[in-house]
Amino acid sequence: MATQPSRDLETFPNPTPERDYTIRMRIPEFTCLCPKTGQPDFATLHLEYVPEATCVELKSLKLYIWSFRDEGAFHEAVTNQILEDLVAATQPRFMRLRAEFWMRGGIDTSVIVDHRADNWHPGTPVHLP
Amino acid sequence: MATQPSRDLETFPNPTPERDYTIRMRIPEFTCLCPKTGQPDFATLHLEYVPEATCVELKSLKLYIWSFRDEGAFHEAVTNQILEDLVAATQPRFMRLRAEFWMRGGIDTSVIVDHRADNWHPGTPVHLP
Amino acid sequence: MATQPSRDLETFPNPTPERDYTIRMRIPEFTCLCPKTGQPDFATLHLEYVPEATCVELKSLKLYIWSFRDEGAFHEAVTNQILEDLVAATQPRFMRLRAEFWMRGGIDTSVIVDHRADNWHPGTPVHLP
Amino acid sequence: MATQPSRDLETFPNPTPERDYTIRMRIPEFTCLCPKTGQPDFATLHLEYVPEATCVELKSLKLYIWSFRDEGAFHEAVTNQILEDLVAATQPRFMRLRAEFWMRGGIDTSVIVDHRADNWHPGTPVHLP
Amino acid sequence: MATQPSRDLETFPNPTPERDYTIRMRIPEFTCLCPKTGQPDFATLHLEYVPEATCVELKSLKLYIWSFRDEGAFHEAVTNQILEDLVAATQPRFMRLRAEFWMRGGIDTSVIVDHRADNWHPGTPVHLP
Amino acid sequence: MATQPSRDLETFPNPTPERDYTIRMRIPEFTCLCPKTGQPDFATLHLEYVPEATCVELKSLKLYIWSFRDEGAFHEAVTNQILEDLVAATQPRFMRLRAEFWMRGGIDTSVIVDHRADNWHPGTPVHLP
Amino acid sequence: MATQPSRDLETFPNPTPERDYTIRMRIPEFTCLCPKTGQPDFATLHLEYVPEATCVELKSLKLYIWSFRDEGAFHEAVTNQILEDLVAATQPRFMRLRAEFWMRGGIDTSVIVDHRADNWHPGTPVHLP
Amino acid sequence: MATQPSRDLETFPNPTPERDYTIRMRIPEFTCLCPKTGQPDFATLHLEYVPEATCVELKSLKLYIWSFRDEGAFHEAVTNQILEDLVAATQPRFMRLRAEFWMRGGIDTSVIVDHRADNWHPGTPVHLP
Amino acid sequence: MATQPSRDLETFPNPTPERDYTIRMRIPEFTCLCPKTGQPDFATLHLEYVPEATCVELKSLKLYIWSFRDEGAFHEAVTNQILEDLVAATQPRFMRLRAEFWMRGGIDTSVIVDHRADNWHPGTPVHLP
Amino acid sequence: MATQPSRDLETFPNPTPERDYTIRMRIPEFTCLCPKTGQPDFATLHLEYVPEATCVELKSLKLYIWSFRDEGAFHEAVTNQILEDLVAATQPRFMRLRAEFWMRGGIDTSVIVDHRADNWHPGTPVHLP
Ligand SMILES: [Ca+2]
Ligand SMILES: [Ca+2]
Ligand SMILES: [Ca+2]
Ligand SMILES: [Ca+2]
Ligand SMILES: [Ca+2]
Ligand SMILES: [Ca+2]
Ligand SMILES: [Ca+2]
Ligand SMILES: [Ca+2]
Ligand SMILES: [Ca+2]
Ligand SMILES: [Ca+2]
Ligand SMILES: [Ca+2]
Ligand SMILES: [Ca+2]
Ligand SMILES: [Ca+2]
Ligand SMILES: [Ca+2]
Ligand SMILES: [Ca+2]
Ligand SMILES: [Ca+2]
Repeated sequence: MATQPSRDLETFPNPTPERDYTIRMRIPEFTCLCPKTGQPDFATLHLEYVPEATCVELKSLKLYIWSFRDEGAFHEAVTNQILEDLVAATQPRFMRLRAEFWMRGGIDTSVIVDHRADNWHPGTPVHLP
Repeated sequence: MATQPSRDLETFPNPTPERDYTIRMRIPEFTCLCPKTGQPDFATLHLEYVPEATCVELKSLKLYIWSFRDEGAFHEAVTNQILEDLVAATQPRFMRLRAEFWMRGGIDTSVIVDHRADNWHPGTPVHLP
Repeated sequence: MATQPSRDLETFPNPTPERDYTIRMRIPEFTCLCPKTGQPDFATLHLEYVPEATCVELKSLKLYIWSFRDEGAFHEAVTNQILEDLVAATQPRFMRLRAEFWMRGGIDTSVIVDHRADNWHPGTPVHLP
Repeated sequence: MATQPSRDLETFPNPTPERDYTIRMRIPEFTCLCPKTGQPDFATLHLEYVPEATCVELKSLKLYIWSFRDEGAFHEAVTNQILEDLVAATQPRFMRLRAEFWMRGGIDTSVIVDHRADNWHPGTPVHLP
Repeated sequence: MATQPSRDLETFPNPTPERDYTIRMRIPEFTCLCPKTGQPDFATLHLEYVPEATCVELKSLKLYIWSFRDEGAFHEAVTNQILEDLVAATQPRFMRLRAEFWMRGGIDTSVIVDHRADNWHPGTPVHLP
Repeated sequence: MATQPSRDLETFPNPTPERDYTIRMRIPEFTCLCPKTGQPDFATLHLEYVPEATCVELKSLKLYIWSFRDEGAFHEAVTNQILEDLVAATQPRFMRLRAEFWMRGGIDTSVIVDHRADNWHPGTPVHLP
Repeated sequence: MATQPSRDLETFPNPTPERDYTIRMRIPEFTCLCPKTGQPDFATLHLEYVPEATCVELKSLKLYIWSFRDEGAFHEAVTNQILEDLVAATQPRFMRLRAEFWMRGGIDTSVIVDHRADNWHPGTPVHLP
Repeated sequence: MATQPSRDLETFPNPTPERDYTIRMRIPEFTCLCPKTGQPDFATLHLEYVPEATCVELKSLKLYIWSFRDEGAFHEAVTNQILEDLVAATQPRFMRLRAEFWMRGGIDTSVIVDHRADNWHPGTPVHLP
Repeated sequence: MATQPSRDLETFPNPTPERDYTIRMRIPEFTCLCPKTGQPDFATLHLEYVPEATCVELKSLKLYIWSFRDEGAFHEAVTNQILEDLVAATQPRFMRLRAEFWMRGGIDTSVIVDHRADNWHPGTPVHLP
Repeated sequence: MATQPSRDLETFPNPTPERDYTIRMRIPEFTCLCPKTGQPDFATLHLEYVPEATCVELKSLKLYIWSFRDEGAFHEAVTNQILEDLVAATQPRFMRLRAEFWMRGGIDTSVIVDHRADNWHPGTPVHLP
C-alpha cells in the first residue's frame, strides 16, 4: 500500500529532556512549484534543534516534506512556514532551518530562519581547541 | 502565463553537421514517482551526444524533464525511455544518458544507456598528453 | 522580446517582518570594465541580509547586475556602490556584500562591505555544537 | 513487522534486453566478522553489470548484504562469493564487484572481481572527448 | 583467541592532570539495529574531551563500540547513553559526542551531546589569527 | 591608452616544429549575449592543440575572446566558430576546444569541437603507469 | 619597455572612508632567498585590511613583491617588514598579513602579523547564521 | 609480547585461482633512512596484483614494511626490492608497486615498478560506460 | 657527514619582540613506537605559537622530531612532553601543539595541548568579515 | 657555504636497467623571467620518465631548476629546452615534461613535451580494474 504525503508531523518523547543537546538533519529532497511560473523549484533543507519534550519523527518528516511537491511557494515564505510547522509540532527550546534553493536566473538563494523559546537561553558554548 | 510540462522535444538545426562534435548536458532536476511506493524519486541526468541534423532545444528539454514529475517510473525503464525519446527527436549519430538516482535503502543506483546510429563510427580518438 | 539591463531594483513585501532572518545569494555573473585599461573585469558577488519591510526581487537583481556590463568601475568603489543601491532599495536591518574579483596581475582581490540600520541590533547568536 | 536478513536474491525482468547497458550500485553498508579475531570488518561495495534477462531487485539486495553481518569471512573469499551469488541469481552478460574494506593494521585493502558470460563480447567503446 | 565485545570501559591515568587539554577521536565503525525495523543502522562517532584523572583506553573503547552491534537503539537515546557511559567511566572535565548516522528515508541525522563537570569552567579560549 | 577587443589573432613561430607537443590553455573569462533573450551568457574555454608552424599569441587571444562580449551567439555555433578562427590563424596539426557554459534553465551545457590536419596522425600514445 | 621591481608602494584615495570595510588580497608569487643557503624560498601572501584614507595600488604592490626576488630574508623578519612597509604606505585602520612559506626540511611554516591603529576599534561583528 | 619487524612474507592460498582478479592495498606507513644523510624518508606504498596460487598475508606484510625502518635505501632501489620480495613470496600473475615518497629538496618523487609472469596475459579489459 | 637526531632545540632571537604575532608549523614526519606493542606509530604535528624573546630554529626542530623515532611513547604523554620541551626552549608567550595520530584499531586520535605564559594575555581578536 | 645554481645535471646508475619502470617528480618551484616584460613567471613542473642507464640526481635537478631564475624564457621554448637538457643528461628510454605556468592575462597555460628513444617501445599496458 502506497504511503501518502501529509502535513501531520508526528513526534516521539525526548529521551533526555534534562539535557540541552542538538539534533541535526540534512533533507536533500525538497521540491515545490514557483508561484510565478508554475515550474518546479528544488532545495536542500538543513534543520537543527534543541528538543524540549518531543523530537520530530523521521518518517512523518519525510511525508511532510513530500506534501509541498504540488504547492506554489516563494522561497522566503515557505522556509518560514516549514519552521513554524516544525515549531508548532515539537515546541523546541531552539530550532533553525536553512533552505538552500538551487540556482534560478544565475543566482543561488538560501533562506535561514530560527526560533528560540521565550524561556530558553543557550549555555556558554565550549569550543575545544 | 505559466509554462507547462510537455513530452514534445523541440530541436534546432545542427550548425556544423559536416563535423562530429560533442554536446554534453548536466540536468540535476529530474524527479518522478516510485511505482511501488508512490514516493518521489530523484536523479541527476548526464546527457552527451554527437548531433546529426538537429540538436535538442534547451527549454523544451527542461519541460520534457518536468513531464515525469507525476509519473511512476522504474530506474532502468525510465532511463531507457528518456534515451529513446531523445533519439527519436534528434536522430543523433551517437547519444548516451547516465541517470544517477539518489540513495534508496542505503544503496545509490546509476543507469547508463547509449545509442549509436547504424551508419556511424567514431573517428580514432586523439588524447593529447 | 528581449529583456534589458536596468538599475531599477524591485522589491516584494517581507513575508515575516516580525522575525530577524537571513537571505543569502550567490551571484557569479558580475562583469564590468576596468577604468584604467578598458578591459573586462569579473567577480562573484555574495550578498547576505536581514530584511526589514521588503526583500529584493530576484529577476530585477539579475537585470541590475547586468547594468554594470559596460561601466568602468574600480573594485572598491563598485562594491560600495552596489551595497548602497541595495540598501536604498530595500532598507534592510543589516546587509553585507562580498565581491570576489578574479585574478589581475597575479593577485586575487575581494572587497567586503556591510551596512547596519541605526536602530537594529543583532540578537545574541546561537551556535549549536 | 521486522524484515529479516536473507540470502535469497530476487530479480525482475530486464525492461530492455535488446540493448547492452550498465547498472551501477554503491552499497556502503557491508559488514561481516574477521574469521581470525571475530571482530567486525566493514566495506563499501561497488557493483556494476550489464543485465541479460533479469536485474537484481534493490530491497532483496539489501537483505542479502545484511545476511553477512554475523558471518566470518576473509576479504578475498567473500568478494568472490558475493559476485558468484549475484551471477547465479541474475545470469548477467557482465558483472564486476569492487569491495573496499576499511583500514586494518594500517593497510586499506580492496578486492575487485568480475564475470563475463561465455557468449558475450563488449561492443567497441565510444569515449566522447 | 578471539576478543569479545564488552561494555567495560577501561581507563588509564591522565599523564598531565595539572593541565586542561583536548583528546579527540574519530570512530567510523559504529553499527546497531533499528528498534522499529530490526535493520542495521550505521554511524561515525566523533568524541572530544578534557580529561580529569583518567583517559579512556583505546582498545576497550573499540570493544565497547562493538557491543552495540546486536542492540536495538534509537539515534537520540543511544548517543546520550554512550556519552553517559563514557562520562561514568572517565569522569572528565568536559566531554562531547557527535554521532553522524547514515541516511535513512532520504534524511541524514546527527545527534550531538555534551557533559560538563559541575566544578569545571573552560579557560578563556585563545584563537591565534 | 586602453586596449581594444579584436578578432585579429596574432601568432609567433613554433620554437620546435620538429616535434609534436601539446599546448593547453584555460580561459575562464568568455562572455557573449544570448541571441534569443539578449541576456549575457558565460563560459570557461579549454583549448588544447599540437602546433605546426605557429602558436597563438596570448595577449591577442585575450583580445579575441573579449570581441564576443557584445555579440549574440548560440552555444554550439560560437564554439565551432572560435575553433575555426583559431585553426585559420595557426593551421595546427590538431586542435580541440571545450566550452563549458554556465547553467541556464537548470541545465549546464558543454560543447567540445576538434580539428585534425589532413596529413597529421597522432603517434602511439605512451601512458606510464 | 620592461617594468622594474620597486619598493615604492603607491596608493589611491579610499572611495568610502566614512565606512569600515575589508579589502583582501591573495598574492601567490612571492619569492626571496634564504640568508643561510642562498637558495630560493617561496610563499603565498594573504593580505587583509580596513583602509583609512588610502588603499594600496595593485600594480605597485606587484612590483613591490617582485623587489624581494634577490634579497636574503628570514621568514619571520620579512613578514614583519612587508607589513610595516604596507602600514607606512597606507596608514590603515587595521592590517593583517599571513605569509605561507613552502615546505623546507619537511616542515611548512606560516607567519601571521597584524597592525591596529591606536585610535581604531572594530565594531561589534555581525555573523548571520 | 611485542611483535618484531621481519622480512618473512607469509602467504595464504588464493581462494579462487581459477579466476583473474585484483587485490589492491594502500600502505601509508613506510619509512626508511636516506643513505646519503642518514635522515628518515617516508612514503605511501600502493600495491596491486593478480594472485596465482597465493595471496600475501596482511599482518606479515605490515611486519615486512616495518623491517625497512632502520635501513638505508635509495628511492628507486628500494621500490624495486620490495616488488621483487613480494613477487618471490607470492609468484603472482601480475604485480605493480607505486611508492610515493614525501617531498625532499622541494621535489616529490614517485617510483612505479611492475612484474608480469611469463605465461600470463591480461584478458581484454571491459570498461563499462 | 650524516646529521644525527637530537633533543637539543636551538633558537634564534625574535626579530620583532615588540609585537604579538603567530608562527605556525606543520610537521608531517613524526614517528615513535607504541610502548605496548613496540610497533611504529605515526602522527602529523601542528605547532602554533606567539614568540617572546626567541623562535625555534627549523633544522634543530627537525632533528628533535627525529629523536623520537626509537622511543616508546603514549599519545597523550608524548604530546605533552613535546610541548613542554618546546616551551622550555623558547619560553613563548603562548604555544599550542596538535598531534594527529594515524588510525589504530579503527580509531583516529588527536591530542591538543597548549601553554600560556603567566604574564601574557591575548589582545582582543579582530576578525574581518 | 651557500650552494649555487647550475646547469650541470648529475646522474646515478639505474639500479634495475633490466626492467622498464617509471620515475615521476613534481617540482613546484620553477620561476624565470618573461622576455617581453622582464617580469617573473612561475610554473609547476611534472616530469616522468623510464630510465635507461642513468637516473637524474635530485639535488642537481634542484640546482638546475634554480638556474632559470634570472633567465628570460618563453613558455613553449623553455619547456622544450628543459626536456632536451634532461634527455641529454640521462638518455632515457622515454621522458615527458609538463610545465603548468601560472595565470597571465586571465589565461592559464600548460606545455607538455615528450621524447622517446628510437629503439624503445612501451610494453602492452596492464590496467587492473
Ligand atoms: Ca548556498
Ligand atoms: Ca553514482
Ligand atoms: Ca546524493
Ligand atoms: Ca578570491
Ligand atoms: Ca576570498
Ligand atoms: Ca581503497
Ligand atoms: Ca564512510
Ligand atoms: Ca552530518
Ligand atoms: Ca561541464
Ligand atoms: Ca558554474
Ligand atoms: Ca600553512
Ligand atoms: Ca606523487
Ligand atoms: Ca601525507
Ligand atoms: Ca584528526
Ligand atoms: Ca593546467
Ligand atoms: Ca595556479
